[in-house]
Amino acid sequence: MINKIALEEHFGATEPNIVAQSEEHFTPQAWPRHRDMLLDITDRRLALMDEAGIEIAVLSLLSPGIQSLHDPAQATDWAYRLNDHAAEQVAQRPDRFGSFAALALQDPDAATTELRRAVTELGMVGALVNGFSQVGDADTIVYLDDPRYADFWATVAELDVPVYLHPRDPLPSTSPQYDGHPWLYGSAWAFSVETATHMLRLMGSGLFDRHPGLQVILGHLGELLPFNIWRTDHRLKVAPRGIAAQRPFGDYLRNNVVVTTSGNFRTPALLNVIAEMGADRILFSADYPFEDMLEAAAWFDALELNEPDLRKIASENARRVLRLGDRQSAASSARA
Amino acid sequence: MINKIALEEHFGATEPNIVAQSEEHFTPQAWPRHRDMLLDITDRRLALMDEAGIEIAVLSLLSPGIQSLHDPAQATDWAYRLNDHAAEQVAQRPDRFGSFAALALQDPDAATTELRRAVTELGMVGALVNGFSQVGDADTIVYLDDPRYADFWATVAELDVPVYLHPRDPLPSTSPQYDGHPWLYGSAWAFSVETATHMLRLMGSGLFDRHPGLQVILGHLGELLPFNIWRTDHRLKVAPRGIAAQRPFGDYLRNNVVVTTSGNFRTPALLNVIAEMGADRILFSADYPFEDMLEAAAWFDALELNEPDLRKIASENARRVLRLGDRQSAASSARA
Amino acid sequence: MINKIALEEHFGATEPNIVAQSEEHFTPQAWPRHRDMLLDITDRRLALMDEAGIEIAVLSLLSPGIQSLHDPAQATDWAYRLNDHAAEQVAQRPDRFGSFAALALQDPDAATTELRRAVTELGMVGALVNGFSQVGDADTIVYLDDPRYADFWATVAELDVPVYLHPRDPLPSTSPQYDGHPWLYGSAWAFSVETATHMLRLMGSGLFDRHPGLQVILGHLGELLPFNIWRTDHRLKVAPRGIAAQRPFGDYLRNNVVVTTSGNFRTPALLNVIAEMGADRILFSADYPFEDMLEAAAWFDALELNEPDLRKIASENARRVLRLGDRQSAASSARA
Amino acid sequence: MINKIALEEHFGATEPNIVAQSEEHFTPQAWPRHRDMLLDITDRRLALMDEAGIEIAVLSLLSPGIQSLHDPAQATDWAYRLNDHAAEQVAQRPDRFGSFAALALQDPDAATTELRRAVTELGMVGALVNGFSQVGDADTIVYLDDPRYADFWATVAELDVPVYLHPRDPLPSTSPQYDGHPWLYGSAWAFSVETATHMLRLMGSGLFDRHPGLQVILGHLGELLPFNIWRTDHRLKVAPRGIAAQRPFGDYLRNNVVVTTSGNFRTPALLNVIAEMGADRILFSADYPFEDMLEAAAWFDALELNEPDLRKIASENARRVLRLGDRQSAASSARA
Ligand SMILES: [Zn+2]
Ligand SMILES: [Zn+2]
Ligand SMILES: [Zn+2]
Ligand SMILES: [Zn+2]
Repeated sequence: MINKIALEEHFGATEPNIVAQSEEHFTPQAWPRHRDMLLDITDRRLALMDEAGIEIAVLSLLSPGIQSLHDPAQATDWAYRLNDHAAEQVAQRPDRFGSFAALALQDPDAATTELRRAVTELGMVGALVNGFSQVGDADTIVYLDDPRYADFWATVAELDVPVYLHPRDPLPSTSPQYDGHPWLYGSAWAFSVETATHMLRLMGSGLFDRHPGLQVILGHLGELLPFNIWRTDHRLKVAPRGIAAQRPFGDYLRNNVVVTTSGNFRTPALLNVIAEMGADRILFSADYPFEDMLEAAAWFDALELNEPDLRKIASENARRVLRLGDRQSAASSARA
Repeated sequence: MINKIALEEHFGATEPNIVAQSEEHFTPQAWPRHRDMLLDITDRRLALMDEAGIEIAVLSLLSPGIQSLHDPAQATDWAYRLNDHAAEQVAQRPDRFGSFAALALQDPDAATTELRRAVTELGMVGALVNGFSQVGDADTIVYLDDPRYADFWATVAELDVPVYLHPRDPLPSTSPQYDGHPWLYGSAWAFSVETATHMLRLMGSGLFDRHPGLQVILGHLGELLPFNIWRTDHRLKVAPRGIAAQRPFGDYLRNNVVVTTSGNFRTPALLNVIAEMGADRILFSADYPFEDMLEAAAWFDALELNEPDLRKIASENARRVLRLGDRQSAASSARA
Repeated sequence: MINKIALEEHFGATEPNIVAQSEEHFTPQAWPRHRDMLLDITDRRLALMDEAGIEIAVLSLLSPGIQSLHDPAQATDWAYRLNDHAAEQVAQRPDRFGSFAALALQDPDAATTELRRAVTELGMVGALVNGFSQVGDADTIVYLDDPRYADFWATVAELDVPVYLHPRDPLPSTSPQYDGHPWLYGSAWAFSVETATHMLRLMGSGLFDRHPGLQVILGHLGELLPFNIWRTDHRLKVAPRGIAAQRPFGDYLRNNVVVTTSGNFRTPALLNVIAEMGADRILFSADYPFEDMLEAAAWFDALELNEPDLRKIASENARRVLRLGDRQSAASSARA
Repeated sequence: MINKIALEEHFGATEPNIVAQSEEHFTPQAWPRHRDMLLDITDRRLALMDEAGIEIAVLSLLSPGIQSLHDPAQATDWAYRLNDHAAEQVAQRPDRFGSFAALALQDPDAATTELRRAVTELGMVGALVNGFSQVGDADTIVYLDDPRYADFWATVAELDVPVYLHPRDPLPSTSPQYDGHPWLYGSAWAFSVETATHMLRLMGSGLFDRHPGLQVILGHLGELLPFNIWRTDHRLKVAPRGIAAQRPFGDYLRNNVVVTTSGNFRTPALLNVIAEMGADRILFSADYPFEDMLEAAAWFDALELNEPDLRKIASENARRVLRLGDRQSAASSARA
């Protein structure tokens, strides 16, 4: 069994009651058990981690989490309290847990402030954002390439922490292509499309030209992008249509993106990502409790891949990208 | 140079003036040349085919073509006339060309009638549909899984011809995720997402349970689906949400779908498709004149892949799927 | 569990006492058990086949078997008797077993006669030859490209049956490179080198130019050849050194060779063979009892490869190459 | 064009007349030109390097070179003089060339002394050994796992330089399997088998247990070993036969071996090596003038592989393994 770090591992909370958001993803029978799994951090979750060979789980809030709270003040308040909650949980077993900050991007300045607090005071390793934010009302959606986030990204770059761009569903009101096909939502399809599109917006906005060192994490083996990045660049070469980006998107994918295996335990897809991005940019993850931690680990441990690359994907890349050692030391100092 | 068949090769016409639809895809400088390329069939196109080692090109109308004509009567009329035009062109060099019927799916009965005419009287090898149809007005869109198409699909199955599901762009009015990023439209990204989603709707609708022999052709190495089909099935297993489909989508992909290389000349992606679908279900294509026929052929001819599989992809699979010999004989008889 | 056919499955016998040859491959503790496994055909072997999902096992004598009997008369006699023994065993469960003929190639005419008898009278599906034969004395070795085998190969071609070229060890007297490293013998290394070299001799001799339809089966994912065939051809192009072969060796590999998975349960190697030879030329096998039938099947059944190709490798290719149905019908008629 | 380092690039000399050894590899027509190519270093070779995008070529003597000189004294003398010659050539363009020492392993002590001199005084980056040495007479062959080389390997480990294990042909007197098939010699086949077997001897001898940091370079994409290492280990697990090695051979392959692309410009094989060894252990090389530098570079530059891994293979891995910067600085100091 290979020693692993996982970094798309979700939690919920009842105070504030964010855990209720996940109910829709489960059948009534399955929900109570998964609710418990979301609320628990150091009990059953830790036992499963032991069984799966996961040394460290980097925690993040469930999706859409803060991003779907329309009221910026509420969003900011909840993010603050939930980050405190996560930090307290991590503090109980700092050897086994880390966390990504939840951010109320409905208020860019507040989000930036909270990111700084989370990283420098709470010892968090970065932020996880669940796609676009709904600002003011349900139908006003803002993506992270919006100019209002210029300072936010500058702060991310300054703090030198990764941002995990996590899926959320698009709004049904603007998704007639899913009408009558509810099973297309979520991780079956819509999650990947929505998140990939968001990532392409970031690339096209010139963000990575402004901050060449920025690292964005995508789950699910890259949300379709590694397979298709050649075709995107192939077209942009002849039809840039005023795009701000200065380099081919493949360059961004290979220098500013790392991907995790969360929820996509399929070897041919992994091999495609190795070919397109290299083993240095792939990180093991499970996506617990929406995915089965043991299934993720069993798949990974049985991969017929050379061990040096397996160790990179299992934990070495995560240590580098998250600077786990550094962060944990900083957190210790901050807490001391 | 490997002898090839290509089957996503587009043409336009001026009577009726369908060619004007393609202007938006080109810069003003590039448009006149590409307009000529769309209108020409047996001249420069044939010379390029010779140079590229393409023995047979299966012609189809440009996109969105008939699908974007809101008025069903006009759509039906144009489809009829453009199919006649295509058949006349093919008749000039039946050894070098075949064609897919254009269909006015705004009127399902008329489309069914026209498909039968195209196949049995004009010797066409199947139909090519540019995604959803706009019916009555621009904003009323109908996908091919709609119940109104029950007879249409039954006729496709009866005629035993493939349907090429070709990309078109989603409507901007329902695509806020592309706002401010016009370069995301078309083959850079939106084409693939829109077409893959359409294909998933067909799968989810139970269409392939009703017609297990049906063959749908997807361009561009499968419009993202081969890479991700495992993840879709992985989710549907636990969250079917009332889906009509009786089998995993991977089964449909491997039994009811064939993909072409049109516009996606990338070897790691091809290898992913070989792993997920097998070399029997991949067909060479270029996507002329939106892609460079010579670039497509140069990439393909240089592939470091065993020659039996190369020959399958180059032409043998196309002969099987399109039953080229059969069709051409039938057409000869019909014309005689 | 995928329904499989296996075709490198060995047996021994005590009358004549050929089973004693295999003792050297096992520790004293392991030998009695494996001796029993070699002698048994319809008991424990069949139970394991059921457990492994192997519908049909094509039996062949252990290695080096007949090939190491120096006296041509004895070799001929033993081959005859052991083929009768195999046929009797198969006849007990013709639905579950087939067999390859053992041939005393020390006497080419006798071997040719016996092959004809085995195929036409005993219903065997081809022959399995354990590399070079020792003729007259231990140190006189003859490979199958020797001119004395012209009629033999013509008969193989006429009967249209495959020949399985199975490994044997090179003679220690001519293998100083293994001195002091006994572990290099057998399936750890020497088997593959010796068998690959033998196959290259067949290719270089022009055999497949004389008999373009001939099919040779190689075990162990092709005995190193698929990985290296490009390099061999790359050199032969500039330094043919009077070679008789008229085509690149890659052509022979892809038209006259099929390979089995026997004893090489490694997915990256399998993917290399798929790339170089195509899924139509790969056949499942275990190499029982030198390999673990259940391990072979567990590996194969878990392969993340599209199901149509899996079914080809599992059984469809074997049915085609061995013409199992035809042979079994012929055998029934012959026995009737 | 990607900036590359190549490290299996051969030269010859007339004083002493080592270049004559290579005549047998060429037709009479081709020999004069290739003789010139072997003798030239800073003229046409440099022009080709510019054209191929090869910034640095690490030079080594042709094969079998010193290894086939039976007389230890002569071998030692020639090695000394040819190393001086190489160092002089490199000194003319230290920005474009490096070199591997030639060593007269017929006299282990002298070879050890010369290695130390070559590295510390001549600034060489390691040694290249052409397989076994003939000691005293043509038929006495000694492999590098022989106990007489204990001090030699200890010195290699102490100096922390790689040893390139380069092919040579086995002796015809012990190669009956090649009788009548002269085209099997050399890079068509015999080179790979002989070198792979030599490498397996090193692994089996426990050498890498004694010196865990030792790095051996194999050309030609690993001389068959990556494809087959699983099968070797699979057998050794059940039949170690007293082997000295303490770990699976796969561990040695992934920790003590790096491979170059010399003479094996085949992408499926490269992908197999990436899967089995990882992109960190693959180094570009051409094998000039036995291979075409431009062909090697054209193949490499067109590889559809992510650029970070391409850059590793092109030059970054070579800089790390050869410690080019360090060596060149040391050489400058030594020469100063
Ligand atoms: Zn998640
Ligand atoms: Zn198209
Ligand atoms: Zn065997
Ligand atoms: Zn060389």
